[in-house]
Amino acid sequence: MMSCRWLLPLAASVSSASAANEAECGQPLLEFLHELRTFGATGGGRFGFGVSRPAFSEDDMAARRWLVTRLEALGMEAAVDGAGHVFGRRKEHRDTPVLLLGSHSDSQREGGWLDGALGVAYAFTAAKALGGEAGEEAPLEVVSFQDEEGRFGVTPGSQHFAHGAALWELPDLHNRAGGLTYADAARLANVTGEASSFEGRGPYLGFFEAHIEQGPRLEAAKQKIGVVEAVVGLGQYRISFTGEQNHAGSTPMASRKDALAAALRTGAAVLDAVEAAAKSLDPEAVYGINVVEVEGPNSASVVPGRITLILQFRSAQTGALDAMAQAAQGAAEAHNGRRGVAVEFAVDRATLAPVQFQSSMVSDLATAAEASGHEFMRMTARAVHDASNLARKTPTVMMFVPSIGGISHSFEEHTEEADLVVGCDVYVAAVRRMLRRWETSSEL
Amino acid sequence: MMSCRWLLPLAASVSSASAANEAECGQPLLEFLHELRTFGATGGGRFGFGVSRPAFSEDDMAARRWLVTRLEALGMEAAVDGAGHVFGRRKEHRDTPVLLLGSHSDSQREGGWLDGALGVAYAFTAAKALGGEAGEEAPLEVVSFQDEEGRFGVTPGSQHFAHGAALWELPDLHNRAGGLTYADAARLANVTGEASSFEGRGPYLGFFEAHIEQGPRLEAAKQKIGVVEAVVGLGQYRISFTGEQNHAGSTPMASRKDALAAALRTGAAVLDAVEAAAKSLDPEAVYGINVVEVEGPNSASVVPGRITLILQFRSAQTGALDAMAQAAQGAAEAHNGRRGVAVEFAVDRATLAPVQFQSSMVSDLATAAEASGHEFMRMTARAVHDASNLARKTPTVMMFVPSIGGISHSFEEHTEEADLVVGCDVYVAAVRRMLRRWETSSEL
Repeated sequence: MMSCRWLLPLAASVSSASAANEAECGQPLLEFLHELRTFGATGGGRFGFGVSRPAFSEDDMAARRWLVTRLEALGMEAAVDGAGHVFGRRKEHRDTPVLLLGSHSDSQREGGWLDGALGVAYAFTAAKALGGEAGEEAPLEVVSFQDEEGRFGVTPGSQHFAHGAALWELPDLHNRAGGLTYADAARLANVTGEASSFEGRGPYLGFFEAHIEQGPRLEAAKQKIGVVEAVVGLGQYRISFTGEQNHAGSTPMASRKDALAAALRTGAAVLDAVEAAAKSLDPEAVYGINVVEVEGPNSASVVPGRITLILQFRSAQTGALDAMAQAAQGAAEAHNGRRGVAVEFAVDRATLAPVQFQSSMVSDLATAAEASGHEFMRMTARAVHDASNLARKTPTVMMFVPSIGGISHSFEEHTEEADLVVGCDVYVAAVRRMLRRWETSSEL
Repeated sequence: MMSCRWLLPLAASVSSASAANEAECGQPLLEFLHELRTFGATGGGRFGFGVSRPAFSEDDMAARRWLVTRLEALGMEAAVDGAGHVFGRRKEHRDTPVLLLGSHSDSQREGGWLDGALGVAYAFTAAKALGGEAGEEAPLEVVSFQDEEGRFGVTPGSQHFAHGAALWELPDLHNRAGGLTYADAARLANVTGEASSFEGRGPYLGFFEAHIEQGPRLEAAKQKIGVVEAVVGLGQYRISFTGEQNHAGSTPMASRKDALAAALRTGAAVLDAVEAAAKSLDPEAVYGINVVEVEGPNSASVVPGRITLILQFRSAQTGALDAMAQAAQGAAEAHNGRRGVAVEFAVDRATLAPVQFQSSMVSDLATAAEASGHEFMRMTARAVHDASNLARKTPTVMMFVPSIGGISHSFEEHTEEADLVVGCDVYVAAVRRMLRRWETSSEL
């Protein structure tokens, strides 16, 4: 076991955590975040912190090139790769196992300054705190994945990175709004649209992602840190109703085939069935019919001919996901053909299985949170993150900080800066613990 | 009682109706219809008889100016008035009571060649058959009302004519698509946008409108003539659901306020309640929630925050209309506040009361239909027509002919030409009976 300078602060963390971490996290973190925010800042929202930085937009690419220079200033080799990701690590670690730190710097078109950006800022701050002279640096790599926000699909960048599938083979990879593909957008942004830098990258000790919660639980419980143990799985189904469009006055009730009446009755029955399944198997499960699509004039004097509902549900338990799908399908099929309306139940997108994070990394994070003296809670992530993909490739864990009102994907998104700094303290301490554990267990 | 030449054919109608009417209706009717169709003909639809002649469009106005010349050729004074209607009558009848005959010549944007146009063609053919030397002509006026198809509201032209309200005071008088008003469109079409020609028009003996059925009943029953005794009334209500838009993953079930879930459950309950009320009071009533409006992203991962449903129902019985409205309101209000979603029930448009046509005119029409030897049935109109408005001003009746498949408001609309001629025979015979009755009862 070699003695590493970057490990030293850990020894002092219990007695003087605040002083030590304030220097590491306070000013450097906030400077990084505010500078990153200048790319795509809109000033929108109640707090004035709105950001618009969709994947491959000019602002997104400028922010990525800026990140490259910041990583280079830490002595790292960094670049925007062929898929639009930014990776940075020191050349001394080119062939050694590293802990991957980061998240994503692209945003929703109407987004906030923290979603994704915070995880990149924590990664950068940790790399800065744990950097040092050649031979002593922490074995880290910093990443900003591309398109976590799903302009071209569901986290296509990290999905590709984790699973190695060619980007153009991934499902849902079209931008539904404009017909542009991920690869097209990458080439327009002057990267190759391929991801050759992935080849030979790694091996990895693990992946650690920080993120604002995007939900109300931490704030409601007055907790500062969320130790995320799992990510829910997700099922999504289309329920289509085909009747016959006709005049709403002159078509007798006995001969009308009203697709919307069928959708209302069947939709209510599907929700009741899913609710019953969720209540008995996973009280934390969430579900809803969130989309209704109307074909035709949608006019008061016309009987609707075709309606589609999209049902989505999430649970951390595979059994509950299966049961909700079966309950929904059963209710939908029981209504098929009633009053002349055909009901079809179909997969709208492939089911995402629940993800369990690695227990050792969860313990490292929980121990660091506990040592910080701040309140923390163990929880399940209920939105998809890059970590959902990475967990299938390498040991992974996530950490949450509170978000005001639980709001995200909105110009209204915000978090108290004091909470951001507390989170960074815990994050850096957790990285130290993870690295120390791997070093002392001779995994390095 | 004066002896009028135009009354003579009635005496022969029982013994030689076909021969007499063939000359009056066959060739003149079809020539008129085919020539009118050239204005806005699209060639669309299975039969190639599609027409697009929306109110105040170039094709609509050209058709109206053409109609003026055709009426003038019958010796009538005719003009497009300030509201876009065409009226024509002989100057000898300027100050005497007349029977008003006609319908409308505007069409839906994707319409058929008969909807409205047929009623104008029958009126023209009757005026031609019953015209004659000065002093002997039948006391008739021919009309093509403007905008029956509702580009600017619900039959605004005849509504204005019948009720005398200024056009700009009528509700719903904006073109929702373009912000243009009825008066704007009229001025762009080189009429005044006012309706000064209404003043002093009349008095009227009555109004008689022929129309394709726009429904399946006559065709299904293999009947050639519909003697329309009433027009259904119509109620239309908005049911709005206000919840809270949020992330569909990270918002717990206990705290989400899902407007679409509420709309599905409440909508199904409203339909059940309206169905029960209709079944017990008027088995012929029709009803449906025909419109669903979604505010917000309508995205699978977002809990919908605001949804509106529009309910419409029709019945010939005022009691049934009231009961359906009460049932719907009760069901909607019973759901108000459930699971955090506010439900509002409001009038979407003023209720149209059912219309009963005048019994003497119904008898005249039924007698003419019976005398023709063709099959006919008494029925209720289930769509709004200009006659719905006129019935509140003057004795009124309607006649239907079959429409193939019950289709209208579509390029697919069509009727066998033989059926059109049969209808015209009965129409002209009915006009004779009406005039004879008024003359012999000294109403003239």
